[in-house]
Amino acid sequence: MRKVILGLGISLDGYIARPDGAVDFLFMPKDYSMGPFFKTIDTALMGRKTYDVAMKMGGGFGGPMASYVFSRTLPPGERDGLIFTSESPAAVVGQLRQRGGKHIWLMGGGELVRDLLRADLVDELYIGVVPVLIGEGIPLFPSGFPQRNFALVKNQTFSKGLIALTYKRVRGKAKRK
Amino acid sequence: MRKVILGLGISLDGYIARPDGAVDFLFMPKDYSMGPFFKTIDTALMGRKTYDVAMKMGGGFGGPMASYVFSRTLPPGERDGLIFTSESPAAVVGQLRQRGGKHIWLMGGGELVRDLLRADLVDELYIGVVPVLIGEGIPLFPSGFPQRNFALVKNQTFSKGLIALTYKRVRGKAKRK
Repeated sequence: MRKVILGLGISLDGYIARPDGAVDFLFMPKDYSMGPFFKTIDTALMGRKTYDVAMKMGGGFGGPMASYVFSRTLPPGERDGLIFTSESPAAVVGQLRQRGGKHIWLMGGGELVRDLLRADLVDELYIGVVPVLIGEGIPLFPSGFPQRNFALVKNQTFSKGLIALTYKRVRGKAKRK
Repeated sequence: MRKVILGLGISLDGYIARPDGAVDFLFMPKDYSMGPFFKTIDTALMGRKTYDVAMKMGGGFGGPMASYVFSRTLPPGERDGLIFTSESPAAVVGQLRQRGGKHIWLMGGGELVRDLLRADLVDELYIGVVPVLIGEGIPLFPSGFPQRNFALVKNQTFSKGLIALTYKRVRGKAKRK
């Protein structure tokens, strides 16, 4: 089955961006590559705020990846290489899974992540952690979803102190002892 | 110089405890030991709320470690194997450093951590991350302090997916590009 993989870089205090959306604190060391990850996916999911930030930074959507933007206010439909939808993230993921294909990249932001964690539709985490506390920002995991247990699949260290962590969802365990 | 070392276990979403203070989600795998860490310290610092939770869980303070509790409301002075103080964390750390000794363990909680990050008095981080998202709780790094850059010193994987990360503070860098 197509997996939903949350893939993002964060600060050590868990932020995907500064309060204004800036991600200047993130970096990509030379010995690290997202290439192998991108080969496994053909679809991306993002919230409207993440879309806004990406547009401010120059856009550059399109290409071979089907990119969905979740928004209750923007008109639904395909334009500018993106698919805008007002359906629930859970409904869209259900349709994508029925259709088949490669894995699905959940690229943020926090509110969409929370929605999909609530619906228990996040299958893997692929998180890069940079060695800086930024002190305030937009959290990867905003509070307000039930406990979700994971298993560590991979823990790798790259240059400049980036660590890359892969986890997979472990379902069927008690919510709390 | 005596270092202030923040040493704590957290959930993957950055919580040191559930909203009620429970830490049932944390665990200590067999192949992991805090022993080497404890050998390097002789003093512990905790906030009043962390003290309350520790007391609820049975206390057990005292022994060879000098343990300070920061509280603006509890009467200052030594009792029950603890040193209660209404002085600022920065003032107490300054006095401890003048006195000399082993390193100083900052054992939480989040508000004390934030105070000491604001004062830029946290020298090392020693964080264990368990593979679970608990969804809500008491954050290790509550927002509201300036950016602090660190360097990764060690990244170790233990059984059951615990990862242990050691960082040291890198001072003298620009706050932001």
